Amino acid sequence: MDMNDRALRNIIVGLGGKVNGIPRQDSFRITVAAEVMAILCLASDLKDLKARLGKILVAYDLDGNPVYAHDIGAEGAMTALLRDALKPNLVQTLENTPVFMHGGPFANIAHGCNSVRATELALGLGDYCITEAGFGADLGAEKFCDIKCRFAGLKPSCAVIVATIRALKYNGGVPKTELAAENTEALSKGIVNLRTHIENIRKFGLPPVIAINRFASDTDAEIKIIQDFCREMDVEVSLTEVFAKGGEGGTDLAQKVVSTIEKNDGAASFSPIYDEKLPIKEKIGIIAKEIYRADGVDFLPAAEKSIAEIEKLGGGNVPVCIAKTQYSLSDDPAKLGKPENFRITVRDVRYSAGAGFVVAFTGDVMIMPGLPKAPAALKIDCDDNGNISGLF
Amino acid sequence: MDMNDRALRNIIVGLGGKVNGIPRQDSFRITVAAEVMAILCLASDLKDLKARLGKILVAYDLDGNPVYAHDIGAEGAMTALLRDALKPNLVQTLENTPVFMHGGPFANIAHGCNSVRATELALGLGDYCITEAGFGADLGAEKFCDIKCRFAGLKPSCAVIVATIRALKYNGGVPKTELAAENTEALSKGIVNLRTHIENIRKFGLPPVIAINRFASDTDAEIKIIQDFCREMDVEVSLTEVFAKGGEGGTDLAQKVVSTIEKNDGAASFSPIYDEKLPIKEKIGIIAKEIYRADGVDFLPAAEKSIAEIEKLGGGNVPVCIAKTQYSLSDDPAKLGKPENFRITVRDVRYSAGAGFVVAFTGDVMIMPGLPKAPAALKIDCDDNGNISGLF
Amino acid sequence: MDMNDRALRNIIVGLGGKVNGIPRQDSFRITVAAEVMAILCLASDLKDLKARLGKILVAYDLDGNPVYAHDIGAEGAMTALLRDALKPNLVQTLENTPVFMHGGPFANIAHGCNSVRATELALGLGDYCITEAGFGADLGAEKFCDIKCRFAGLKPSCAVIVATIRALKYNGGVPKTELAAENTEALSKGIVNLRTHIENIRKFGLPPVIAINRFASDTDAEIKIIQDFCREMDVEVSLTEVFAKGGEGGTDLAQKVVSTIEKNDGAASFSPIYDEKLPIKEKIGIIAKEIYRADGVDFLPAAEKSIAEIEKLGGGNVPVCIAKTQYSLSDDPAKLGKPENFRITVRDVRYSAGAGFVVAFTGDVMIMPGLPKAPAALKIDCDDNGNISGLF
Amino acid sequence: MDMNDRALRNIIVGLGGKVNGIPRQDSFRITVAAEVMAILCLASDLKDLKARLGKILVAYDLDGNPVYAHDIGAEGAMTALLRDALKPNLVQTLENTPVFMHGGPFANIAHGCNSVRATELALGLGDYCITEAGFGADLGAEKFCDIKCRFAGLKPSCAVIVATIRALKYNGGVPKTELAAENTEALSKGIVNLRTHIENIRKFGLPPVIAINRFASDTDAEIKIIQDFCREMDVEVSLTEVFAKGGEGGTDLAQKVVSTIEKNDGAASFSPIYDEKLPIKEKIGIIAKEIYRADGVDFLPAAEKSIAEIEKLGGGNVPVCIAKTQYSLSDDPAKLGKPENFRITVRDVRYSAGAGFVVAFTGDVMIMPGLPKAPAALKIDCDDNGNISGLF
Repeated sequence: MDMNDRALRNIIVGLGGKVNGIPRQDSFRITVAAEVMAILCLASDLKDLKARLGKILVAYDLDGNPVYAHDIGAEGAMTALLRDALKPNLVQTLENTPVFMHGGPFANIAHGCNSVRATELALGLGDYCITEAGFGADLGAEKFCDIKCRFAGLKPSCAVIVATIRALKYNGGVPKTELAAENTEALSKGIVNLRTHIENIRKFGLPPVIAINRFASDTDAEIKIIQDFCREMDVEVSLTEVFAKGGEGGTDLAQKVVSTIEKNDGAASFSPIYDEKLPIKEKIGIIAKEIYRADGVDFLPAAEKSIAEIEKLGGGNVPVCIAKTQYSLSDDPAKLGKPENFRITVRDVRYSAGAGFVVAFTGDVMIMPGLPKAPAALKIDCDDNGNISGLF
Repeated sequence: MDMNDRALRNIIVGLGGKVNGIPRQDSFRITVAAEVMAILCLASDLKDLKARLGKILVAYDLDGNPVYAHDIGAEGAMTALLRDALKPNLVQTLENTPVFMHGGPFANIAHGCNSVRATELALGLGDYCITEAGFGADLGAEKFCDIKCRFAGLKPSCAVIVATIRALKYNGGVPKTELAAENTEALSKGIVNLRTHIENIRKFGLPPVIAINRFASDTDAEIKIIQDFCREMDVEVSLTEVFAKGGEGGTDLAQKVVSTIEKNDGAASFSPIYDEKLPIKEKIGIIAKEIYRADGVDFLPAAEKSIAEIEKLGGGNVPVCIAKTQYSLSDDPAKLGKPENFRITVRDVRYSAGAGFVVAFTGDVMIMPGLPKAPAALKIDCDDNGNISGLF
Repeated sequence: MDMNDRALRNIIVGLGGKVNGIPRQDSFRITVAAEVMAILCLASDLKDLKARLGKILVAYDLDGNPVYAHDIGAEGAMTALLRDALKPNLVQTLENTPVFMHGGPFANIAHGCNSVRATELALGLGDYCITEAGFGADLGAEKFCDIKCRFAGLKPSCAVIVATIRALKYNGGVPKTELAAENTEALSKGIVNLRTHIENIRKFGLPPVIAINRFASDTDAEIKIIQDFCREMDVEVSLTEVFAKGGEGGTDLAQKVVSTIEKNDGAASFSPIYDEKLPIKEKIGIIAKEIYRADGVDFLPAAEKSIAEIEKLGGGNVPVCIAKTQYSLSDDPAKLGKPENFRITVRDVRYSAGAGFVVAFTGDVMIMPGLPKAPAALKIDCDDNGNISGLF
Repeated sequence: MDMNDRALRNIIVGLGGKVNGIPRQDSFRITVAAEVMAILCLASDLKDLKARLGKILVAYDLDGNPVYAHDIGAEGAMTALLRDALKPNLVQTLENTPVFMHGGPFANIAHGCNSVRATELALGLGDYCITEAGFGADLGAEKFCDIKCRFAGLKPSCAVIVATIRALKYNGGVPKTELAAENTEALSKGIVNLRTHIENIRKFGLPPVIAINRFASDTDAEIKIIQDFCREMDVEVSLTEVFAKGGEGGTDLAQKVVSTIEKNDGAASFSPIYDEKLPIKEKIGIIAKEIYRADGVDFLPAAEKSIAEIEKLGGGNVPVCIAKTQYSLSDDPAKLGKPENFRITVRDVRYSAGAGFVVAFTGDVMIMPGLPKAPAALKIDCDDNGNISGLF
């Protein structure tokens, strides 16, 4: 459902006798965390959409056999409901630049990118198509390349890594409350985080461009450190001021992206980081070592059991989608910079058979948010003339 | 929610420890059965809407005191959500006659009519405004007059009672499978049901007009019985063929309604059947005796307890909305014609404080429908070109 | 279980996944309310005990067929657990009179009497065997005669009806707080309750003897009314003072019981009030009319459905055990004396297939008591020397 | 409760409205897994029993403050219930040797030994008191020394380590199905397990004696290996045949225990392995390193949180009771012999405030066993003469 309520995270339904169902433990999730959302964003057309919906694993029968949405005849009606939703949704910026906003798969238990249909439409309509794959380059970029591009046969030409001097200082050990003060030492230390992302992007065969999202508190000395570092890494860097100046603030970045592609179009060299035919544990191991830079992966017993079950169900040769904190390259949000000497712990693995990937959980993932102590609703009002206030 | 699922009728939520809420027994209901829907349909404007939303009784605190939506600051955000929904929705018939379709309060636990806003807008835009108050004249017409008209200050001029010869024969004892055959005896016997509805409508001060929804199987002899009966009752009758002929099939009815109003505009003599200031049990008693023709009303202990509680909360002087089967004037669907020597049993009473009425339950009322063994979804499909089939 | 806890009345068990069971709604009941207790008290020997345990209806399978304890092989182990419990338990009074205290079936959903084994042992060991069948003569005596005697082939010779002048005045309309004051008018009015019980006992073919449990507040004028009434009814009456004087206070009663039996041994004329081969509703109807003096019985839909189901399962020709308030001959505790012009409402019927009777519920029956706001445990203590205080 | 039922492991109680309690998630545990059992076994007298019962942490209030049994006035009634249970229970062997069997605290979430009262009584009545502290010497002996002896001020003189050649071969890598065959190589390898237990016992200041529980399949060559090993370790060893020969089969062991004590009474040198005033994590660390021989201890977040909470509640300076598998010195049942290069993972810590220790969980601990697919009850029967069969 599309409404937050923590009370719906763990529920029991079907109480009150046979006519009211069979009692079972269940849970609600918000729309974006549904496998249907991931499917909508990965489907190439209506036929593919219906096929994927039919493959959703919805239950096990009393003998332990899997029951798919197709087995209960649900995919036809589901496709009918989603027919129009599959069409990309065109909006525009304040400067009237056309933008497709279409689909919102949770960037954790799903791949977190815009729909395949929207990207393909944009590619057909313009010279350059720019898409977002956020939530940390170790998560967003990895899933964009290994899941979305793999399924849709997309070949990106270039990757823009967005960074801030504040965040790099934070990765260098500065507390959040002191990020506004100049601290070249911390910046020099935290820049190892950016270095790792640059190396990671290059592992996919893509030329990176660095976009520094400029803040008023950034000092010349700090900016110089970034520029020197990028020169050393042989990577273009642009100071963007889009927040302050709109499109004009991003022109330099755009030109550097174009010139980078002209010099070296990544589309030729692009490839995912792992072969999806490898065993599940090996695929997770490659991501953990190559991208997160972990020493290895530990699988808790529940994860081991799930992996065996999924491989038995035929889910062994699909991409893996790792749910991990975006605050650290490791699975521990407190480990900043470029963590070393750590292992990733996978506590469970689930099969999104319709979406076509397996999800490996490295921590608790919230699929039904709760309201804060003072929910936003308390500030929202509507006066007698219909003027709504308090939304923002 | 707007999705049927019997498994959501009786649920337990808030499991999994403090961070996931406080365990409680709860239930979902479909949108039309929500008090919010009744409020939307009764609200005269945004201010009234907000005030009514704020009065919804949502809980009791640990000391047993009532907690209203206003107490938790919810009515502002609720009003913002409903701002646009309050505006009447204009559609048209196949012959391009304008129609407002706006709101759908359950005709059982709510008053079952179109919104006050739509009716007022229609009254302002046309010479005549026709509105539906279905689900049996003992239920629909009674609630329209006693709840909607009372709240909105509406004064109807005339009431059209729609009947079929088939239904009157059924009320005369003919099984459903034999309604197509002529049976003047059963019709003469079952016509007492129509007589009761005519008498009931006149109790509200309204002149009735009878519309016989004509079927191909109706015979001349049967039609003559109806016509003789209406002459005897001194009431206009029209054979309508709207289903077969469209607007033309209803012209005669329209003219009879107009001439009836010209002879005798009910707006002057109209009044509800009871004084809403009377005690709850007396109000229910009046409806039961005057409209249902019961000997009296029995209140089960839960109903007695609820009535005492509601009167303590200040809900003693609002209209009552009786949830009762539409298949009989009594609360027993098997009692046809004009049942006699029966009593109505009220098993529980609930307070829709925001909507502004109390609901008296005379039987089980379904507020969350379930799917049939073979749900409609099984027939619905969408082909690769987006053509949807199986909806009807 | 043998511990009171209202929180265990309505529970859900089997949560936490397949290894921890299948979720289902369930409830605990206290030991005395278990069908096993009723069986223990009705079993004639170990063989009969095992056969009855095997007949307990424990579930329905997924196709709706009944599942008995025998079907799951439980009766052998259950019999082993109860082997020693089946042996009557001998205790003694303060004056060293031997007494069997054995078994405690709830006097509401079960027959409420001592075990068959204890009664048979007492009959074999003494000249006279006295047994208690309390909880109102309309309930206790009726169940003793119609259930226990019928199953065990017992033929009682005489019935002692215990009454108090206080209770008869209460039945005559005196509030509980004023029962100590003389009130011959109320006594004369309330004595109709005693008259009904005398008539009822005689319907079983038994000669009654009245025992007036004497209180210090009883006046001579009141006692005379009782004595005159008993003379008029042609029944022996004894003023007993057992509470004050021990066995000596009951000698007169004992002699009157013996002389009554010598004059007229009821064993020859005794018979149950109904034929157990009659349909369930007829049996309930006979008890309601002959014993409770009701005009008739109304069966709510759930009861109708259960009766049909029980008769299909072969439970149509066993005795019925009616759960009813002990405060009134009717099913309304507020109706005192000899209520007239009332009907009994049966809300549900359950099948105690092992015990060998069906239970008809006329109100809510508590099978798991709760603790009061200040439970007795708060007063109970044990000092350092092991002296326990606060038990009484 | 004292009945196994997996369906009672995870339940919801208090459903059905206010009069039936407040809904909450709960669980049953079997009697031996209750904190009350641990308390009964550790209490020095009635006064201490009552004090410990009063300290049981039963809930948290709405503000998060702890609620103890004392706060709800429960300890008086609980003590009254347990008054007689506190008295040691005297039984005898088949050869009429007196034995106290008293108390059964789960050897996992509790300390697993006989009651303090029984041990003290035995010490007062005989020259030697032998008590069992089973479930692996790393668990049973450690808890006996660190929990029971510490609380009761007991000073043991000697520890008998019971071993079998079969088990040592198993620890040397022989599969369970091949333990009957001679395998001196595996025995020589697995004997490192016995060596570790001997070293551990000596860390408590106690002189060990080895009892080899002799099996018919033990060969002379194998026995010689044991004897040579014990000589090398400078420890007495006895081949016991108590199972086959009764008391006579243990005479040699008894004499060796007596002579060992005469040579070196451990009571003088005995001391627990850790100081209970140390922080919880340090105490766990000492046991893990000294007894289990782990490299260190990892605390999962839930454990970290619980430890902080327990130390806040004043539970930081009590003994720790570690719940761990008995199949390995490590927390992984598959690691045999003397595992090396491993860490212990503590997933949660709970406070048994009444018993007076904190429990550290290193794996899943079953506190409510379930029945197997074919429960023992299926074989149990009772014939018509009361003969019970199938118990063993």
